[in-house]
Amino acid sequence: MPVKVVLYGIGAIGAKIAKCLLNKKGIEVVGAIDIDPNKVGKDLGEVLGLGKKVGVVVSNDAGKVLSEAKPDIVVHATLSFMDKVFDQIMTCIKHGVNVVSTCEELSHPFVSNPKLAKQIDEAAKKHGVTVLGTGINPGFLMDTLPIALSAVCHEIKSIKVKRSINAATRRLPFQKKIGAGLTVEEFKKKMQSGEITGHVGLEQSIALIADALGWRLDKIEVEPVQPVVAEEEVKSDYITVPPGKVAGLKQVARGIMGGREVITLEFTAYIGAEEYDSIDIDGVPPVHEKITPCVHGDEGTVGMITNMIPKVIKAPPGLITMRDITIPSATPEHIDVYLR
Amino acid sequence: MPVKVVLYGIGAIGAKIAKCLLNKKGIEVVGAIDIDPNKVGKDLGEVLGLGKKVGVVVSNDAGKVLSEAKPDIVVHATLSFMDKVFDQIMTCIKHGVNVVSTCEELSHPFVSNPKLAKQIDEAAKKHGVTVLGTGINPGFLMDTLPIALSAVCHEIKSIKVKRSINAATRRLPFQKKIGAGLTVEEFKKKMQSGEITGHVGLEQSIALIADALGWRLDKIEVEPVQPVVAEEEVKSDYITVPPGKVAGLKQVARGIMGGREVITLEFTAYIGAEEYDSIDIDGVPPVHEKITPCVHGDEGTVGMITNMIPKVIKAPPGLITMRDITIPSATPEHIDVYLR
Repeated sequence: MPVKVVLYGIGAIGAKIAKCLLNKKGIEVVGAIDIDPNKVGKDLGEVLGLGKKVGVVVSNDAGKVLSEAKPDIVVHATLSFMDKVFDQIMTCIKHGVNVVSTCEELSHPFVSNPKLAKQIDEAAKKHGVTVLGTGINPGFLMDTLPIALSAVCHEIKSIKVKRSINAATRRLPFQKKIGAGLTVEEFKKKMQSGEITGHVGLEQSIALIADALGWRLDKIEVEPVQPVVAEEEVKSDYITVPPGKVAGLKQVARGIMGGREVITLEFTAYIGAEEYDSIDIDGVPPVHEKITPCVHGDEGTVGMITNMIPKVIKAPPGLITMRDITIPSATPEHIDVYLR
Repeated sequence: MPVKVVLYGIGAIGAKIAKCLLNKKGIEVVGAIDIDPNKVGKDLGEVLGLGKKVGVVVSNDAGKVLSEAKPDIVVHATLSFMDKVFDQIMTCIKHGVNVVSTCEELSHPFVSNPKLAKQIDEAAKKHGVTVLGTGINPGFLMDTLPIALSAVCHEIKSIKVKRSINAATRRLPFQKKIGAGLTVEEFKKKMQSGEITGHVGLEQSIALIADALGWRLDKIEVEPVQPVVAEEEVKSDYITVPPGKVAGLKQVARGIMGGREVITLEFTAYIGAEEYDSIDIDGVPPVHEKITPCVHGDEGTVGMITNMIPKVIKAPPGLITMRDITIPSATPEHIDVYLR
């Protein structure tokens, strides 16, 4: 029996996940939900630009799709914030369907919005389904992976995680989202207006690490997003940034315990940046780990969401985090074998 | 309530774990078992060279210690092979005690010795206890960590894992165990006599990765241990190796599927070796990860064994592997909080 999946959100990431799932053995895509009038009513294959129909028509009526398709799980990829996705998640839950979501705040919902998290958790338990927010970041690189690496240490003083992305290797919307090509003044205006939000998830990642290690933090500090100004001309296929203009952004967040900085996350994305993901644990033994180049964000999110499908289906009901599932792994073959 | 631990085996690694556990909050060491006549009857503090008594006398009567101390878990660190530890593990199980063990073959017992594994599993389930074999390797660096990293990939062609240890940074017994200072002829004789066994665990690590990924391997090939001959003089604090003599050893194991090498593990340990642990996943996205220097084996094993104590106590009964527990993590603070 294949795993029946409904896609909720066919945007940039949702479309990539959709293409991956359509090629996976053991997966059957049985429905697709999106509000974009350009997509509603069209065959999913057409929306994805596959040049063929796949027999699933995109609908903007989530309840109807879920009632008719009766999926095992919804792959949810719409928005980053809890309050924005709350109704969507609750609709899935009320239809008795598990959810794996790219919603960044949902990766540790209890820190982002404990009230909504409690409602989701209670509803999920009542309906016997599981809800997980995950992805490459938050979800893996700056939380699950440092947590896993910490397992070799019998003493830990502090953990420092960096993600550094050369935005030139990414989609144009990503390059725009980080403000590449703007003046510093334009960048600051777009920050104020909320057009530039920076990376969502640093607070969640710190909370997840602290929970895993049993650290009761005094507080989590998320510094304001900073523009990274080009010192010399840098460019991508789409944008040329002259010296003095913004090449991208940098964000730092800290977990403080006993007045001491014990967790530091540093997210950097600009055109021309060195590409790596690094984790340094000041502990016994010390651990200095680096992934070079950094894991591709979009591809990695497709991987994480796809691979967590059987884990979410198997997990106990409720709103869970990456700490509640068994060790994550790829599902390169028949995805349904993981459920046996 | 602290977690009550009995130590089974106070050898090189067992002693290091013991020292760590005696310093951990939330842990109470309530018994110690060893067969060494130089240790039996002495206070554990004296055996560990702490310069003070800890109120636990080392005994060679496992059954008596377990009956009297009634621990929550046994930390077992005696031997590498299933058949050698079978009776010890069964004694713990029959006393209703969970076990976390450094026994390499126990990390994936179903591949090493399915018959004994089945007996242990059935007995553990009957007595409601959990048994886990783990450590830094096998247990983490060449299996759990590549499995976790695979979670970002939605396609995987192959996985290559290397562990390269500069033996000069390790204990003298380790340097001797890998044949440092021998002639090639002496090395080969000691291989034949079983004095040099190489690293135990490559087969288990490959099987664990394949299981996690749903790969049904045609076979696992473990190549014979190879001596690494010094090209120029290399030395440690204890051993000087002239050119032409053995500096250490190298071992390769392969997982074959569909006639293709899909998993390759390479273990290298010699005096003068570059130190790193690396994982390369040929997949989408590709992952190239490196820990530099390599994680210290003894310290890492102390970390893994200590940190898995609450996970094993919480896990469902039976003989489990690292795949069956939630994401491993350090327990730097009160270890007992992880059980709440």
